[in-house]
Amino acid sequence: MLNKKLEMLPLKNVKINDPFWNHYMDLVLNQSIPYQWEVLNDRVEDIEPSHCLQNFKIAAGMQEGKFEGMVFQDSDIYKWIEAAAYTLEWHPDKELERKVDEAVDIISAAQQPDGYLDTYYIINGLDKRFTCLMDNHELYCLGHMIEGAVAYYNATGKSKFLDTAIRCVNCVSENIGPEEGKKHGYPGHEIIEMALIRLYKITGDKKHLALAKYFIDQRGQEPLYFLQEMKSNGNSFYWKKSNFQLMYYQAGMPVREQKDAVGHAVRAVYLYSGMADVASETEDKELFDACERLWESIVYRNLYITGGIGSSEYGEAFTFDYDLPNDTVYAETCASIGLIFFCRRMFEITKESRYIDICEQAFYNGTISGVSLDGKRFFYVNPLEVDPEACEKDYHKREVKPTRQKWFACACCPPNLARLLASIGGYAYEENESELYINLYISGDVNTSLGGTDETFHVETRYPWNGDVRIRIKQPQKAAYSIALRIPNWCESYSIRINGEITDCDPEKGYLMLTREFEDGDTIELSMDMPIRLVNANPFVREDVGKVAITKGPVVYCLEQEDNGAQLQELLIDPDSKFVEAFEPDLLDGVMTVSADGYRIAEKEWKKSDLYKSYQKPALIPQKLKFIPYYAWANRSIGEMSVWVRHL
Amino acid sequence: MLNKKLEMLPLKNVKINDPFWNHYMDLVLNQSIPYQWEVLNDRVEDIEPSHCLQNFKIAAGMQEGKFEGMVFQDSDIYKWIEAAAYTLEWHPDKELERKVDEAVDIISAAQQPDGYLDTYYIINGLDKRFTCLMDNHELYCLGHMIEGAVAYYNATGKSKFLDTAIRCVNCVSENIGPEEGKKHGYPGHEIIEMALIRLYKITGDKKHLALAKYFIDQRGQEPLYFLQEMKSNGNSFYWKKSNFQLMYYQAGMPVREQKDAVGHAVRAVYLYSGMADVASETEDKELFDACERLWESIVYRNLYITGGIGSSEYGEAFTFDYDLPNDTVYAETCASIGLIFFCRRMFEITKESRYIDICEQAFYNGTISGVSLDGKRFFYVNPLEVDPEACEKDYHKREVKPTRQKWFACACCPPNLARLLASIGGYAYEENESELYINLYISGDVNTSLGGTDETFHVETRYPWNGDVRIRIKQPQKAAYSIALRIPNWCESYSIRINGEITDCDPEKGYLMLTREFEDGDTIELSMDMPIRLVNANPFVREDVGKVAITKGPVVYCLEQEDNGAQLQELLIDPDSKFVEAFEPDLLDGVMTVSADGYRIAEKEWKKSDLYKSYQKPALIPQKLKFIPYYAWANRSIGEMSVWVRHL
Repeated sequence: MLNKKLEMLPLKNVKINDPFWNHYMDLVLNQSIPYQWEVLNDRVEDIEPSHCLQNFKIAAGMQEGKFEGMVFQDSDIYKWIEAAAYTLEWHPDKELERKVDEAVDIISAAQQPDGYLDTYYIINGLDKRFTCLMDNHELYCLGHMIEGAVAYYNATGKSKFLDTAIRCVNCVSENIGPEEGKKHGYPGHEIIEMALIRLYKITGDKKHLALAKYFIDQRGQEPLYFLQEMKSNGNSFYWKKSNFQLMYYQAGMPVREQKDAVGHAVRAVYLYSGMADVASETEDKELFDACERLWESIVYRNLYITGGIGSSEYGEAFTFDYDLPNDTVYAETCASIGLIFFCRRMFEITKESRYIDICEQAFYNGTISGVSLDGKRFFYVNPLEVDPEACEKDYHKREVKPTRQKWFACACCPPNLARLLASIGGYAYEENESELYINLYISGDVNTSLGGTDETFHVETRYPWNGDVRIRIKQPQKAAYSIALRIPNWCESYSIRINGEITDCDPEKGYLMLTREFEDGDTIELSMDMPIRLVNANPFVREDVGKVAITKGPVVYCLEQEDNGAQLQELLIDPDSKFVEAFEPDLLDGVMTVSADGYRIAEKEWKKSDLYKSYQKPALIPQKLKFIPYYAWANRSIGEMSVWVRHL
Repeated sequence: MLNKKLEMLPLKNVKINDPFWNHYMDLVLNQSIPYQWEVLNDRVEDIEPSHCLQNFKIAAGMQEGKFEGMVFQDSDIYKWIEAAAYTLEWHPDKELERKVDEAVDIISAAQQPDGYLDTYYIINGLDKRFTCLMDNHELYCLGHMIEGAVAYYNATGKSKFLDTAIRCVNCVSENIGPEEGKKHGYPGHEIIEMALIRLYKITGDKKHLALAKYFIDQRGQEPLYFLQEMKSNGNSFYWKKSNFQLMYYQAGMPVREQKDAVGHAVRAVYLYSGMADVASETEDKELFDACERLWESIVYRNLYITGGIGSSEYGEAFTFDYDLPNDTVYAETCASIGLIFFCRRMFEITKESRYIDICEQAFYNGTISGVSLDGKRFFYVNPLEVDPEACEKDYHKREVKPTRQKWFACACCPPNLARLLASIGGYAYEENESELYINLYISGDVNTSLGGTDETFHVETRYPWNGDVRIRIKQPQKAAYSIALRIPNWCESYSIRINGEITDCDPEKGYLMLTREFEDGDTIELSMDMPIRLVNANPFVREDVGKVAITKGPVVYCLEQEDNGAQLQELLIDPDSKFVEAFEPDLLDGVMTVSADGYRIAEKEWKKSDLYKSYQKPALIPQKLKFIPYYAWANRSIGEMSVWVRHL
């Protein structure tokens, strides 16, 4: 059975009050959402204008002008609404709601009589709509519209935006589909597939499910739609010199036949998310198997230790198995976010913790690395090794930045990160009628109604710096239900106490299932050993051979020049070192640092004229190595950084 | 005094008969030159037509058609003539001479009444000539014309082609120069500077020296000529996103102020060669100092161990100090050839062996690696590490080929290599009235006239596989002169015997100077220890830290998949290993291979699902490592290759 066995807790039921995550909740509420609103309204001075809401106003006839920005500029406001909607669930804010309503009014005003809504074509000529599904992002924008509309409906019960989205979906249904006379196409940039399933869960309208399924089934079928489209448009193919060709769009073969994660990484994981949704709704085992295979392709062979995916700047794409260069990496923030979407769906179908392990890996590393600690600057590319001089002088590293940037012309990552973080509570807790799954350990209060009564779970933890989690249950009466506690893949030893008593409990699919009659005041204490852990990469990863990474719990560490001096490649770590942890409250908004014994190759043995000389055992100078969490890098001076370090 | 203290022996005085180089002499005579003649005449079927001679015929009105090929297509025939001319010196061939005459007739027929000769502009419109010196290669083509014309004149005494070249130089002089009314420009691709000095040495015409000096002095002066040219052409700048900007052309600042080798590597070393020539002819110490500084920039900080230069495919350019990636390398064959040109000039001025050390490094590695053992295929890019899958699937490595290619649309390297190899005798022996410098150890017979008599030096050696060199002197009478024997930088121990008796002799600037009255039958025996040598790179070279390269004498070795299996990154060498040399006559046309003790990381400890796991000291499986000379790689199956290997 492929039905989803769990769903996210409503965000309003999760009050986060966590020493680690409060900072990010604050960023989302008080930085990202207000700042991005100003950006979308072109009221921020020292960045390129967004034009996003302006395009809607022009399309609505509210002002004159031409379309400006990327062809998918509409999606920025949709993502912003989605993020805002999530926060409204757990942090009601009338003023923010008013802004969203204002945006919804502008968006809806641009809708055409038949439901069509994409400002690029409304402004530039509706006769061309649906003629370049491959590259012009109409269905992508609609996907984001649906996601935003569903989120806002869930948060407020207001249906105006949802109705707008439904009308637009219906317009698409009338133009695209299997029936004769319709275009037999699908989006160049996926997302609408998973969005339609969310819509279907609200509307119950089988048309919405059918359209999602059509997009999945039709993708990559012969005759290849994108080839036909290119031919009829007389377009040349942007990727003609590429290895991936139509697989840039995951559209070179039917999705059920796809075995390797290839092409544009964000598109890939958005597609796979939609595939998992459709497989679940339609009990399509073959499709689910394809999802599992593609997930394994990513996680077994194409995943950075930071949770990053997509190793090539060219096409922002996957390349080939075990090709994970640290310095010419892409690992887009959005791709890690999309990977989380995909993993969550696979988890909800399977209840297997291995999917959430990857979510956690991405949450604590390659997603939040995308934003500076002050919330004002963003990484698009998340490298694992940086030499600032190379970023400047090696053309192939021009997209790798040694410092976060203010705002991008293609501003996908900042709002995407906002919508992810604003909904982290839902990733932390999933439930069904009798089970509460705790996936991420975050302090706060969680409300559920299991076993016929209402519960509040008061969670206390210093995660990710410490593996102790204490859960105190408040509930008016006894009730039987299950609490599933995830034992992360990094955890090799743990103990669990209920009301102070050690309990024996073997994990099932990576979860400790506590099934019993709980009563008010019950206390669960999970204690996970969280030592510093040295990690090796598979020796097929050329770039990491002979190196280790330092991790603690889910957190990946790195060396920065600021703490360790330049020429990080000269450093070696002693794997038998004592590793000293220290929580430094004033460093990087409070981080656990790690010190270890290491060495530096003695430069003094090299004269300026010696580029090569006869081998001699390198003279090593002892040096303490200081590691900081990867997510917090590039928040001080600009300098070198490296996740992987050579070992003795 | 910056005058050149030595000059190459005339090639006709050097008869090579050498177990190593005979093969390449044979390739040049019997493969390169005949094959390239067919190519230039568009008579080779399975490659893109060259159009080279066809363009000349069209320009001469001998046939109809339009210009085809690169804007610098003319240079291919000039390079071919130069190569042919060199062979005619040491291997007279009437039929080849007839072909050259035929080419010269066609070329000369295209010359315009005022001496102008560049088929691109003759065919496309002479009104545009000299309007795009930055990119359109007129002066580059003329530079090659001069080089070819001088070489052919030297070989045959025939002056027709030389006269053609002189007329064209005079035409340039009338259009470009410091005088009012002339263009104050210089070439975008250098070479004419050094070519003009060669011409000047024959003509004695001060105008030719003055033009070379003008091109050097004017380069990079404010107002920047190329900026003016772009402005007046309304051209956009191809390199506008680059770090190097006008320094792609070494034209962003006056050459005397340049401290770092930057920009397009071939252009750079061609310029520096011309600078050295002009510095020498004009006793310009400041200019010479710039040459020395730039040479040190290359050799101390920007040189691959193979003699390759220019680490970036983008712009075929230098990047920054110590940036020497092995897998995204460029290291164009032509750039190593140009480096040899530059080094030879610096040597002739200084008599310092360090310049010839670099020539030797390039000769035995990064130049001849450009051609397959059968002479039919060529590398443009000479990588130090190759994974064929990456070449195919990583867009940034698309120019790195795992196997040599038949012929390039931009066919600079094959004819350039031919002209270099055809003149290797001149690189091996330089002389003045009283000294013979032996720079490269090559078996054969060498004729000179030193100390008032004629000598023949009969040289026997198995170099580069063995460091013993035996020189037997034949001369009719006693004569006093000096023989300078280069002690290469890799040689740590040697002995010298004259007529069997050990002689004490300290090297001067890297040469053993044997100065005495020689007589018929004298025998000199130089015995250089040539053990296997492990080499380290400066730890500033990030990619080579923790690795060694294997060398023997001047030859750099590499690992190939064919001998060592795939996943070369899993291999480790034991630096304390016994290294076993074996000459394998049937392998790769006869090479000395090297075996060493090493290890391979045990893959079996890794499950398919393990991309990362907790560190454990890697299990190592003993494995013999087999190294072959780098120049001979990629002559068997397509597979991985690596010069650098990790050490225990």
